[in-house]
Amino acid sequence: MAKEIERKFLVENMSFKNNAEGILYRQGYITNSPDKVVRVRIAGAKGYLTIKTKNIGLTRSEYEYEIPVKDADELLADVCEAPLIEKYRYTSRYEGHTWEIDEFLGANRGLIIAEVELQSEEEAVSLPDWVGAEVSGDPKYYNSSLIKRPYTEWSKVEGSP
Amino acid sequence: MAKEIERKFLVENMSFKNNAEGILYRQGYITNSPDKVVRVRIAGAKGYLTIKTKNIGLTRSEYEYEIPVKDADELLADVCEAPLIEKYRYTSRYEGHTWEIDEFLGANRGLIIAEVELQSEEEAVSLPDWVGAEVSGDPKYYNSSLIKRPYTEWSKVEGSP
Repeated sequence: MAKEIERKFLVENMSFKNNAEGILYRQGYITNSPDKVVRVRIAGAKGYLTIKTKNIGLTRSEYEYEIPVKDADELLADVCEAPLIEKYRYTSRYEGHTWEIDEFLGANRGLIIAEVELQSEEEAVSLPDWVGAEVSGDPKYYNSSLIKRPYTEWSKVEGSP
Repeated sequence: MAKEIERKFLVENMSFKNNAEGILYRQGYITNSPDKVVRVRIAGAKGYLTIKTKNIGLTRSEYEYEIPVKDADELLADVCEAPLIEKYRYTSRYEGHTWEIDEFLGANRGLIIAEVELQSEEEAVSLPDWVGAEVSGDPKYYNSSLIKRPYTEWSKVEGSP
């Protein structure tokens, strides 16, 4: 089990791609409630099953297991709620931290989110210049929310996203 | 992924223990709905995470992964719904088939169920003399039902179980 502490930001421009390579992610949820998440993910050629517990501040417990990619593909098709999340994930190092940038596809196209993982909630972090507004803890940016209410539908309720 | 085809019977007497050794099982459910089950189990000294899909006749798909027993213990305590299922599982061979006999503890004490796994729904199977009434497909005997409505509470609604 790992404790996951992360901050999340919108991405202002595409310069993060200069030093990064994207991997295609497909993921879905077997269970998707505020207090527990069971996620199936295919990242490149690997499959994963992940259990996440409730958020407490920026921290949540995460249990992740690699599973055969064939199993993951069946679970995505037969057990997970539609629609799936599809995105390219880029990884970039900046001043001692690793950033993960998700460029969403399909019903969430247009949305790009950057996450940085921290050792403690108080840890200082330098922000790359392609980073915009912080959205840490805003539930609507959770991947588990984006299957229920995808980005391309936000403007229908709230004006331009 | 495995297809699981099994028949389930009540157990009439304890003679099944003559050739069998029991292992303590503790298990709980992260998700427990008619169309999907995510189960955490500790069997002896090993931990497992299992996903089961909907029943179609006697058949359901099952995906099972071994996980660290420490993770399983944390998931049982922190993520699974209470109460947990606790039981001794005995394994016994009889005329070419392997029987699994579950002797339940705690809120389900007094209940003993035998299961035999088959290769097809039509396969013939010889019944040991300790086997009683068949309860295949009766949802109240599912482990996932026994956490919601345990055996020791059946008589309160229906007369003697």
